[in-house]
Amino acid sequence: MALIVQKFGGTSVGSAERIKNVAQRVARFHAQGHQLVVVVSAMSGETNRLIALAKEIQQTPDPRELDVVVSTGEQVTIGLLAMALKDIGIDARSYTGGQVRISTDSAFTKARILHIDDHAMRADLNKGRVVIVAGFQGVDDAGNITTLGRGGSDTTGVALAAALKADECQIYTDVDGVYSTDPRVVPEARKLDRITFEEMLELASSGSKVLQIRSVEFAGKYKVKLRVLSSFMDDPGEGTLITFEEDPNMEQAVISGIAFNRDEAKITVLGVPDKPGIAYQILGPVADANIDVDLIIQNVGRDGSTDFSFTVHRNEYQKAMKVLNDTVKPHIGAREVVGDDKIAKVAVVGVGMRSHVGVASTVFRTLAEEGINIQMISTSEIKISLVVDDKYMELAVRVLHRAFGLDGEPKAA
Amino acid sequence: MALIVQKFGGTSVGSAERIKNVAQRVARFHAQGHQLVVVVSAMSGETNRLIALAKEIQQTPDPRELDVVVSTGEQVTIGLLAMALKDIGIDARSYTGGQVRISTDSAFTKARILHIDDHAMRADLNKGRVVIVAGFQGVDDAGNITTLGRGGSDTTGVALAAALKADECQIYTDVDGVYSTDPRVVPEARKLDRITFEEMLELASSGSKVLQIRSVEFAGKYKVKLRVLSSFMDDPGEGTLITFEEDPNMEQAVISGIAFNRDEAKITVLGVPDKPGIAYQILGPVADANIDVDLIIQNVGRDGSTDFSFTVHRNEYQKAMKVLNDTVKPHIGAREVVGDDKIAKVAVVGVGMRSHVGVASTVFRTLAEEGINIQMISTSEIKISLVVDDKYMELAVRVLHRAFGLDGEPKAA
Repeated sequence: MALIVQKFGGTSVGSAERIKNVAQRVARFHAQGHQLVVVVSAMSGETNRLIALAKEIQQTPDPRELDVVVSTGEQVTIGLLAMALKDIGIDARSYTGGQVRISTDSAFTKARILHIDDHAMRADLNKGRVVIVAGFQGVDDAGNITTLGRGGSDTTGVALAAALKADECQIYTDVDGVYSTDPRVVPEARKLDRITFEEMLELASSGSKVLQIRSVEFAGKYKVKLRVLSSFMDDPGEGTLITFEEDPNMEQAVISGIAFNRDEAKITVLGVPDKPGIAYQILGPVADANIDVDLIIQNVGRDGSTDFSFTVHRNEYQKAMKVLNDTVKPHIGAREVVGDDKIAKVAVVGVGMRSHVGVASTVFRTLAEEGINIQMISTSEIKISLVVDDKYMELAVRVLHRAFGLDGEPKAA
Repeated sequence: MALIVQKFGGTSVGSAERIKNVAQRVARFHAQGHQLVVVVSAMSGETNRLIALAKEIQQTPDPRELDVVVSTGEQVTIGLLAMALKDIGIDARSYTGGQVRISTDSAFTKARILHIDDHAMRADLNKGRVVIVAGFQGVDDAGNITTLGRGGSDTTGVALAAALKADECQIYTDVDGVYSTDPRVVPEARKLDRITFEEMLELASSGSKVLQIRSVEFAGKYKVKLRVLSSFMDDPGEGTLITFEEDPNMEQAVISGIAFNRDEAKITVLGVPDKPGIAYQILGPVADANIDVDLIIQNVGRDGSTDFSFTVHRNEYQKAMKVLNDTVKPHIGAREVVGDDKIAKVAVVGVGMRSHVGVASTVFRTLAEEGINIQMISTSEIKISLVVDDKYMELAVRVLHRAFGLDGEPKAA
């Protein structure tokens, strides 16, 4: 008998029929004698509907009141799932974030969990009840409703698993696990049986959408065993286990996966005076404009000046260019600001990189053989990130996937 | 400067546009220096949508979980109205029933309010904030979400007015006041400037849909000054004031209004042994089947037996007939059970009845002159209720309205 936290996303609970399917799945685990805490998102489309309604009222909705409105999405789902379980004879009880008492700070629309009271949930579990908790939401010290931001239901699942010291946190999603890369781009992509947290973090931050990055960080911090499974397969198998330790007995592949995204744009400030504090003078105004920066590269200078490059989200490209041209360039006396929003980021991720030499050179050789120019390079201990021309992205992913021996049996579409 | 509770129903907040209109109306009162607590219902259609969703999952939805689901309707509206007020520069804050702390018993889907904590609301009002409260909902001692049942937002409004000792509770609705009868049936129906609580109670219980009966009882009990106004007129005027005392200076009409409904069916148990306890033996099983009984009439017996008649909601007619034929009739040895669901109830209401003789005979003469047969008669101190054939209902209402001098200027459609 184990204590399992199961999280089902919006697509998995997108209709009455699907909610009944989730109930059946929960029932099977319950019948095996497991204690179950089930976290659910809003039915797919519902959060967007509520946000659109709010924006009809106020262009930039008041954050406190937006959380009041948006949190109703998950509240509907918990009630419906509890009904579906009761309808098949399983005792269940729903909890909003405030009812559990998932305490958060007061950063409306992007709150962070501070503490979870496990008292009521434990009492229910000990009575054999299935506990159903609204994902994505909490309550601050003053009793205001808060939300954790988009994708926050994963974080709720992991946080509950940590608070309850659950044996496992299962994230049910529309894919059956974590893949070596996106099967839509590389049909030979392989499902990974296991992956380390560090790799998962790097994959997530590089565009793999399977798990929300905050939930992975949380799981790593609290050593929660995390498993990604399909909510649509009758027998989802073992999915992908995300472990917090490298398995010493396992023949570890050097590279676990290739992530990519084309959500970014690159900006280069040319002819920057090469002196201390210059990075802050460039990126300070960008941060003040609430623009997140991803890759940052500054090469060694020559002749007292250097070039400074970084990437931002493509949606914020115009805004960032304006800040740089209007504020930064005249202030620091740079020569020119150039940018390109037709780029893509490709990342090669694997803990094996630590102990294997030659990974970087394999990457560079592989791309060179295909005539793909690398515009930017940034590396961490277990990741090599590259910026290439947008139009070469799929090709780069495919050839790298093959070069590192990741190709498996083609996956049926 | 007064403390005013304003309640807006589902039609008044049925769209983003209408919510903005409500905000404008609230703003006008706020500009006059009043302290305002605003109670809102779910957007029209929303509660029905949520109930339908629940019924897709479970034929008879679990009451606790149904309240979790249905209470989201009002929660969305409070957030949206707070945004609409902030958008026009007025500080506002929304509260769910649980956040105010509107304490109720645990009778899910039909809870009763036990206590209201006015602490947080007062603090906000003293800061000049408009307080917005979700109608229809509360929370029990264990922290479970409860709802007050259909139309319960009126009750929330009145209960808040009582708890805050508000100067007035204004109920905004889609009519501009209480009428002497339904203007759709009698174009000459007059809007009443004032009406007593007792009259309002009798009108409400006889089918006038302007106010929910429990809210009127509540207002009477706590002496809350209640006013019905139109939420669609730019200048709603004074609406109808519902007073808890008869105005001694006012030339009181004998009759205030004529109410009616065709939601009922009548049932008669013939040849009932005329002995003590027989009413309980008939109505006990009916109550056990959760069927509400309205009018009850038992005439004096002859030859040791009597006939026992009552009315039930038309939707429960078949169910009641079955209980009576299967259980009651054999048990008490009645001769026959007959019923009719093609009936209508008409009620003549007025506190003036107390001091004026001849009201009943005017009623009977008026209907006799039109050839309308009266099937059942029941009277209280300020009301005469009649059951007539369904097809004569409109005619009965019109001739009684005229007979008691209620006809005013025809109301524009």
